[in-house]
Amino acid sequence: MSNSESPSAVVLLSGGLDSATVAALAQSAGFSVYGLTVRYGQRHHLELEAASRVAKQLSVVEHKFVDIDLRTLGGSALTSELAVPKHSSAEQIAAEIPVTYVPARNTIFLSLALAWAEILGAEHLFVGVNALDYSGYPDCRPEFLSAFQSLARLATKCGVEGRPVTVHAPLINLSKSEIIRRGLELGVDYSVTLSCYDPDPDGLACGHCDACLLRLRGFQEVGQRDPARYL
Amino acid sequence: MSNSESPSAVVLLSGGLDSATVAALAQSAGFSVYGLTVRYGQRHHLELEAASRVAKQLSVVEHKFVDIDLRTLGGSALTSELAVPKHSSAEQIAAEIPVTYVPARNTIFLSLALAWAEILGAEHLFVGVNALDYSGYPDCRPEFLSAFQSLARLATKCGVEGRPVTVHAPLINLSKSEIIRRGLELGVDYSVTLSCYDPDPDGLACGHCDACLLRLRGFQEVGQRDPARYL
Repeated sequence: MSNSESPSAVVLLSGGLDSATVAALAQSAGFSVYGLTVRYGQRHHLELEAASRVAKQLSVVEHKFVDIDLRTLGGSALTSELAVPKHSSAEQIAAEIPVTYVPARNTIFLSLALAWAEILGAEHLFVGVNALDYSGYPDCRPEFLSAFQSLARLATKCGVEGRPVTVHAPLINLSKSEIIRRGLELGVDYSVTLSCYDPDPDGLACGHCDACLLRLRGFQEVGQRDPARYL
Repeated sequence: MSNSESPSAVVLLSGGLDSATVAALAQSAGFSVYGLTVRYGQRHHLELEAASRVAKQLSVVEHKFVDIDLRTLGGSALTSELAVPKHSSAEQIAAEIPVTYVPARNTIFLSLALAWAEILGAEHLFVGVNALDYSGYPDCRPEFLSAFQSLARLATKCGVEGRPVTVHAPLINLSKSEIIRRGLELGVDYSVTLSCYDPDPDGLACGHCDACLLRLRGFQEVGQRDPARYL
């Protein structure tokens, strides 16, 4: 919801559970939310539809898609035809950089969010990275986000003129169950989100990729049923 | 030219004089050059054609285009319909952030170059920013480039694994005439480059935008005729 009194924030919306929670957190903290979704040549459009549903559910001020075809550069399971790894439980997820890692993805996404923030005059960026990711993804670690914030101050006209952009990662130290608990308190309807790396053509989650397993375990720990549709 | 012995470098190629010189410098320093040109919704395709001519002239190992439509986000003379400012001499160029500033452009471009570098296993990025730009463009200053290099080390799998990417900006402290002198020594054919912000449909440079005036003065100081075609 827009309010002329409230500060503006650009929130990266992927359509997943984390970014939906972040957007709700930003709203509850009093920000007018501008949702940004990057279409980067994903294998399926289902997560883009999920991002639209999240934006609509939260009545964000504006929701934009930016197109960038990272497939041109090659590499990664999320942008090409590599198989998504499947496991039978969250405990089996290896503590190494996963094949689903997209080179420099968060740097690219945050750069685009920074560009839009500068155009809007927004001084805040929100991103849904969290502790569970940063064992595997280098660009989800707190030190990466600090470095990006330093860069953002130097990179922009608004930063030079004394209105630097602040990067918020409110989930950074939360477990999946803590994220879910916080979102449920804020009334997030997780049925509209899609976390699965490998959903079927109808948008049903596979239940066995890293993202599904972490999400399912999170709901289990909270003692709630995951409202997502699974195969 | 490719050489299995030589280290690889991604060079951002705009089609202008600076990036052509940087690519030639990288080659002369022994790097195998991979040229990256970002199509970001420019008003004219002439600079993309110039980038292709530069890549061909230098026989780079590979030249890629990545598409990203920054017009979606709005703002700036280089991506929308704002008028490009014209002057009668280089001395009239104002020492302020120009309307041709594209929010966070270099952050976005370097992020894309970083992604490709990581995919290629290249440990070097070259970018043609220089002293004349950084009075006006915040993302051309040395401190911005240092911050990007810090970010790059944290943002990538290769950085985490001890093979961080080094960002080179060999023109950073050079004047336009010094850049041109260096390029001419290396045999760069500047007739294939296009610097003008507002060329006519046939690719003739306007001669009065900031980019044309700086370039013309540079050639004048070197005592050479600019081989670019002007209106």
